[in-house]
Amino acid sequence: MKKSFVIKGDICYCQSLENLLTIKDGFLVCQDGISQGAFANLPDQYSDFELLDFSNMLIIPGLVDLHLHGPQNHYKGLGMDLELLDWLNTYTFPEEAKFKDLDFAMDKYRLFVEEIKRSPSTRLSIFASLHLPATILLMDLMEESGLISYVGRVNMDRNGGADLEEDSAEDSVNTTLAWLEAVKAKGYERTFPIITPRFIPSCSDQLMDSLSKIRSSYKLPVQSHLSENQGEILWVQDLCPGSKSYADAYDQFKMLGFQGLKTIMAHCVWTSPEEEELLKDKDVFVAHCPDSNTNLSSGIAPIRRFLDNGLKLGLGTDVGAGSSLSIFKAMVDAIQVSKMYWRLVDQNAKALSAKEAFYLGTLGGGEFFGKLGSFAEGYEFDCLVVDDSRFSPWSEWNIEERLERVIYLAQDSDLVSKFVRGRKIF
Amino acid sequence: MKKSFVIKGDICYCQSLENLLTIKDGFLVCQDGISQGAFANLPDQYSDFELLDFSNMLIIPGLVDLHLHGPQNHYKGLGMDLELLDWLNTYTFPEEAKFKDLDFAMDKYRLFVEEIKRSPSTRLSIFASLHLPATILLMDLMEESGLISYVGRVNMDRNGGADLEEDSAEDSVNTTLAWLEAVKAKGYERTFPIITPRFIPSCSDQLMDSLSKIRSSYKLPVQSHLSENQGEILWVQDLCPGSKSYADAYDQFKMLGFQGLKTIMAHCVWTSPEEEELLKDKDVFVAHCPDSNTNLSSGIAPIRRFLDNGLKLGLGTDVGAGSSLSIFKAMVDAIQVSKMYWRLVDQNAKALSAKEAFYLGTLGGGEFFGKLGSFAEGYEFDCLVVDDSRFSPWSEWNIEERLERVIYLAQDSDLVSKFVRGRKIF
Repeated sequence: MKKSFVIKGDICYCQSLENLLTIKDGFLVCQDGISQGAFANLPDQYSDFELLDFSNMLIIPGLVDLHLHGPQNHYKGLGMDLELLDWLNTYTFPEEAKFKDLDFAMDKYRLFVEEIKRSPSTRLSIFASLHLPATILLMDLMEESGLISYVGRVNMDRNGGADLEEDSAEDSVNTTLAWLEAVKAKGYERTFPIITPRFIPSCSDQLMDSLSKIRSSYKLPVQSHLSENQGEILWVQDLCPGSKSYADAYDQFKMLGFQGLKTIMAHCVWTSPEEEELLKDKDVFVAHCPDSNTNLSSGIAPIRRFLDNGLKLGLGTDVGAGSSLSIFKAMVDAIQVSKMYWRLVDQNAKALSAKEAFYLGTLGGGEFFGKLGSFAEGYEFDCLVVDDSRFSPWSEWNIEERLERVIYLAQDSDLVSKFVRGRKIF
Repeated sequence: MKKSFVIKGDICYCQSLENLLTIKDGFLVCQDGISQGAFANLPDQYSDFELLDFSNMLIIPGLVDLHLHGPQNHYKGLGMDLELLDWLNTYTFPEEAKFKDLDFAMDKYRLFVEEIKRSPSTRLSIFASLHLPATILLMDLMEESGLISYVGRVNMDRNGGADLEEDSAEDSVNTTLAWLEAVKAKGYERTFPIITPRFIPSCSDQLMDSLSKIRSSYKLPVQSHLSENQGEILWVQDLCPGSKSYADAYDQFKMLGFQGLKTIMAHCVWTSPEEEELLKDKDVFVAHCPDSNTNLSSGIAPIRRFLDNGLKLGLGTDVGAGSSLSIFKAMVDAIQVSKMYWRLVDQNAKALSAKEAFYLGTLGGGEFFGKLGSFAEGYEFDCLVVDDSRFSPWSEWNIEERLERVIYLAQDSDLVSKFVRGRKIF
C-alpha cells in the first residue's frame, strides 16, 4: 500500500497546548507514513506525489484514546445509576466473565472493533479481560483493523468474585507469560501488549511484584486505574497499609514510569498534590475520562492543576463507564466538567478551552505513542478528514470555529477518511 | 389521514416520576389521535383497527422540548468558551440580527425544522427572533412539519445593541399585536403563539406591562429566561430595584402563571427557596437546560429540590447554547449534572435516575401541552418507535435496561417512526 501522498484541505492541528495552527486550502505531505509538514503552498519536491483533494474539508490529526475496555462496549449506557464498586459487581464483572466463551467474545469484539474503526480514534490503549484466548482474538481483530493499539490481558487474582478471578498470583503470572509468548509468535505490526493489573484491589502484592519483574524483562508499558472513587481509595488504604497513598502503592511495586517504560493511569480524580508530584516525577500519563467520572458519580479530576504542573495528560473514553467511543465527545466532556469544576470547586482553575481539549485528544495523549498527534515534520501520519459541510453549508466560519463545531457536533458518519501511519483505513 | 390504529411492540412509559410501566410485545391503541391505553393483550373492540407491527422495537412517548431558539441552530457548538453575556454579544445577537433578511431566515429555518422533524421531539416551545416576517415563516414551516409547537416572536426594546433592538416599547407592542393578528389569520392547527419577552434586561418596564395586558386579553402563555447566570441576576437587581428577586420582578409584571395561563421559565439555576415558592404558587414550568447551563458555565440547577417541592419541571435543549436538538441527550445531561451537584454541592440532593430523567422529558414537560407524555387512556397520542437492535443485537436486556441504553446512545437515525397526536410524521 502506497504511503506517500499529499492531502489538500483545510488543515488544523496543535503545535502545543495553546498554539493551534490552521491553513486554509493547505497541503499536508505524508512520506512513508511520516508527516513532512503542512504547507500553504506545496513545495516543489513533492509535486509528483499523488494528490488527494479534500478541499473544503477539515484535516486534523487522528485522535488518541488512552483508556477503554473492549469487553464493556456491548453494554455501554447501562447501570449508570450506580457508583463504581456497585456497577462493577452488578454489570461489569458478570459480563466480562462471559469472555471465557470464545464465541461470545467473537460476537462482542467484532462489533467493538468495527465501531472503533469507524470512530475518530487512530490509536488506543485497551483493557481486554483476564481470558487469554479472547485477548489474542481481540489483538488479531485490532491488527486486522489497521489501527495501532496497546491491548492488555487483565490481571486479577482477588476480589473479582468466583467467575472473574484468577486462581492464584502464580496462575496469573503464568498466563501472562504464556500470553506474551503467544503475542511474540503472532508478530503483529501494530498491536502491542501492555501489562494491565486491573487495579490494586484486584491484584495481590505477590502478583504486583511479579508483574513488575515481567514488565522490566519484557520492556513493556503498564496501564491501570488510580484514584477514581473515594470508596476505592479507602479500600486501597486498607489493602496497602505500608503505602503513603494510592499512587505510592503503585510506585512501591514499580508500576509507575520505570526504567524509561511508560505507564498510563486512568482517572486520577482524587489525586493529592503529593501524589501529583510522584506522577510527574515518574512520567505517568494521566488518562482523563470525564464521561465515566460523571456517570459513576466519581467526581471531577483537577485537570487545570495537572496542566499547570506539567503532567502528561490525554483523554480516554473509558467505555463502558463512558457511553461513547468518540474522543470528540471526550473533549466536550472534558471542557464541560472543567467548567463545573471552576464554577463549583475552584474559581482559580480556569476551564479548558476547545483548543486545549483538542490538544489533549491529539498531542497530549499522542505522546504515549511517540511522535504523534501533530502534523509537524517528523510526526507519524495519523489523519482524519472531516466533512463538516452539514453543520455550515454557508461556509461562514473560520477553521478554528469549524474545529470547535466539529468537536461538539461531529458523528462518525461525518468522517470521510482516516489514515494511520499513512495507511488508509477508509 | 387515518388516526386510529394499533401499534405492537415493546412499550415503555412513565405513569409518574417513580413509576415506569413496561409491556413486552404489547399493544398500544390510538383512536382519533388519543391513546386508549397500552395492553398486554389487544382488547376485542380494537381487533379491526389497522395493526402496525413494530415487534422488538421500543415504543415510547414523543419527547418534549420546553426551551430552544430557532435562530441559534445554525451556529450551535460555537463560542462555548464564553459565558452568557459575552456569548450573547459575540455570537447570538449578531447572528440573530441577520433574521431581518427573509432569505437568510428561510435558509436557516428550513434546516432547523428539518432537523427537529427528524429529532425525538414531538412538541416544542421555541423562541424565534424579534422579526415579524421571519417568525411567521418559522411558524409556517413548523405547521407544515406536523409537529406541535409554541413559537414566540421575541420582544426586546433595550440592551440588544443597534442591530437587534426594537425602537421603543410602543413599537414592540405594535409589532406583537400585528404578529398575533397575522397568526390568527393563518389559522394554524398545531402552531401557537406564545408571549416571549427575551428576559428582563431586554425589556423595559413599560413593555413588560403592555405584554402582560396582551397576554391576558389574547389568553396566551408566556416563555422567558430566569436566573441563568450570576452576572445576569445582579444586572436584574439594578434594573428592578423594587423587586425582591428576579422571579418577583416577573411576577410584578404578572408574567408568571396568571389567570390559568401558563408560563415557562428556562434555567432557574440560581433560584432561591423564596423564589422557588413563588414559582410553585404561580404554577410556573421550569425548563431545565443542563447542557446549556454547563456550556455557558452558568451552574447546576437544584433539580432534586424542585422535584421534592413539587415544582412543574421539564427539559429544554436550549439550542444554540445547548449543542444538540435531542431531548435524549438532555436527559443524559440532566442525570450527569445532578450527579455532580450531589458530589460537589449537596450530598442530600440525590442524583436523578434514568427513569426520572425520562419522566422529565415526557410527562414532566408534557403537562405544558395538556394531557401529554404518557400512553395512559385519554392522553394525546405522541409516540416514537426506536429500533435499538444495533445496541443489543443479542436481545439480552429487559425493557427498562433497553430504555436506559436508548437514552444514552440513540441517534436520530435510530428513530423508525414518529407520531404526533396520532399523525405519522415519518
